[in-house]
Amino acid sequence: MTATAESTDLRFPIGKFDWNIKVSEADYPRLIAEIAATPGALRSAVAGLSRDQLETRYRPDGWTVKQVVHHVPDSHLNAYTRFKLALTENEPTIKPYEEDKWAELPDSQRVPIDVSLDLLDALHTRWVALLKAMDAADFNRAFVHPEHNRKFTLGQLLALYAWHGRHHVAHITSLRKREGW
Amino acid sequence: MTATAESTDLRFPIGKFDWNIKVSEADYPRLIAEIAATPGALRSAVAGLSRDQLETRYRPDGWTVKQVVHHVPDSHLNAYTRFKLALTENEPTIKPYEEDKWAELPDSQRVPIDVSLDLLDALHTRWVALLKAMDAADFNRAFVHPEHNRKFTLGQLLALYAWHGRHHVAHITSLRKREGW
Amino acid sequence: MTATAESTDLRFPIGKFDWNIKVSEADYPRLIAEIAATPGALRSAVAGLSRDQLETRYRPDGWTVKQVVHHVPDSHLNAYTRFKLALTENEPTIKPYEEDKWAELPDSQRVPIDVSLDLLDALHTRWVALLKAMDAADFNRAFVHPEHNRKFTLGQLLALYAWHGRHHVAHITSLRKREGW
Amino acid sequence: MTATAESTDLRFPIGKFDWNIKVSEADYPRLIAEIAATPGALRSAVAGLSRDQLETRYRPDGWTVKQVVHHVPDSHLNAYTRFKLALTENEPTIKPYEEDKWAELPDSQRVPIDVSLDLLDALHTRWVALLKAMDAADFNRAFVHPEHNRKFTLGQLLALYAWHGRHHVAHITSLRKREGW
Repeated sequence: MTATAESTDLRFPIGKFDWNIKVSEADYPRLIAEIAATPGALRSAVAGLSRDQLETRYRPDGWTVKQVVHHVPDSHLNAYTRFKLALTENEPTIKPYEEDKWAELPDSQRVPIDVSLDLLDALHTRWVALLKAMDAADFNRAFVHPEHNRKFTLGQLLALYAWHGRHHVAHITSLRKREGW
Repeated sequence: MTATAESTDLRFPIGKFDWNIKVSEADYPRLIAEIAATPGALRSAVAGLSRDQLETRYRPDGWTVKQVVHHVPDSHLNAYTRFKLALTENEPTIKPYEEDKWAELPDSQRVPIDVSLDLLDALHTRWVALLKAMDAADFNRAFVHPEHNRKFTLGQLLALYAWHGRHHVAHITSLRKREGW
Repeated sequence: MTATAESTDLRFPIGKFDWNIKVSEADYPRLIAEIAATPGALRSAVAGLSRDQLETRYRPDGWTVKQVVHHVPDSHLNAYTRFKLALTENEPTIKPYEEDKWAELPDSQRVPIDVSLDLLDALHTRWVALLKAMDAADFNRAFVHPEHNRKFTLGQLLALYAWHGRHHVAHITSLRKREGW
Repeated sequence: MTATAESTDLRFPIGKFDWNIKVSEADYPRLIAEIAATPGALRSAVAGLSRDQLETRYRPDGWTVKQVVHHVPDSHLNAYTRFKLALTENEPTIKPYEEDKWAELPDSQRVPIDVSLDLLDALHTRWVALLKAMDAADFNRAFVHPEHNRKFTLGQLLALYAWHGRHHVAHITSLRKREGW
């Protein structure tokens, strides 16, 4: 395995998201359960880390553990917003955001991670309540992503964010495993 | 005073926001302090209300107290997003949302208000940390609101949301005063 | 006014608790409302304070603002415990604790105040739910305080902690007023 | 296997706590990590459960899932108190509490589980900060448990509560496994 391949592995510990995934009604309960489990999993993943460990990059040139923790609610509040936009408007065009620049904003340096863990808990509680109340027609509602220049259904968005939570938790748990923390 | 005027009063207990307000650098600390104080003020405003009181409309045909509480973090996470978009992109056009339709989504019915109070606490902690790190040039950064068809600076957005928190808290405190709760 | 008197004022900004207070059934709703309002009031009281301001003593030789914030949930979880002990046992003798020594334990230095504000929110939500479910006979249940060498009823304890929350909030708000923060 | 044995299994899914366990300095970091991981593990264990599932007993005649969730912070705030008492007094006699009666108090019925998950998060954050600041001499400090009529060191108490969190999480995860939830 080459250094490049290894670096790819560190970046995608559970593999890349398959953008052409077919999501059907039978998958929704499991995917919702994964989104429901994300805040607890992230909280456990960072439990007991020291300040220095939180400032460690999960891979060379990657974000620090702290940046990962602050990124997850920033990302998921954009996802939550996309769900609500698609449920209340007819195929709206959503506003993307530049996640790497957001991760460098000063709140990510200054705020203790507890705050973002709490933010994620509360956000997911509302999000999961919404997801559980959605029927199949709701999951077929769509929005337009202007950078991908295509439509996504909420069923696909559900799969993306079930993956996304596990993806970032695995950044931290795989670092801890490698480091023996 | 006519019934119409009274109804206006109930809707705008602290008055309407002045969209032509001039905000200068000397105003920022006070406005940031108002945003910092909003989560505690909202929590105090609803403290001890019964389930029936939470289901009471703050004015005829208005939202229930519970809907008001769930609306505030939904609104403020959109505001937080607009700050981060304007800080990381060059005069981005933001995505408005239909707040009345969001207030009817099922999570606003199903989730206890504690969750939205916690969401607001955590969101404001990150937001205030960001605001305190911004300099005058940052507050002059702007975004385009496509429905108003004009630019707003982050200084103006700061004033809007300082008002917005006090506005909704006053919906609840004025209801409690009228009802003797 | 002498220095001693001034120092007394700073220590008791809302006055001392009257240990011989008579509390009757008509007082309970107001006292419960005061306990319900404490977490929001404390959160508002510290909103937007800088790290240096949090490390400032609220009076010469007194606790820092940060210590006050961490003290309140430590004190109130002891109070919550006393309510539950008196409700489930027959006039139990409770265990006092040495609050000044607790305030010097290392968690009060190391933990951000957000954590204690969240702890207080959650603790009071459970406590207030308990208080609202109590009838007059429950408030007449008693416990023995071995240092005061006397019985207290839960009605008296309710009055004490309604005062206690306002007392510590006033330490912080009166400091901010004096300092112009 | 007899019915009695099966019932024992459901009650002790990870086995009983060994009250004669020897705990040494080398064990503390792992035990602290287990206590740090408990709030995330409990949150994940209940993620996505319906109201009916929360009202299900984890075993015949046992507590409901909801009662288990509310019990954990009640128990751990007593444990946290015992740590602080033993650190600030000389072998104090602590006050036991009747956990089965506490579990029947009305707050356990009336309060959403989110509140107790938040309470546990915040409490463990303070507790773990305290534990990490303790040295070997601190863990050798002791308190007297009047019902067991013996001394326990804080090292032993640490082991007990590392076990206790995993014990109750396993009540819920083993129920979900049996029920296919």
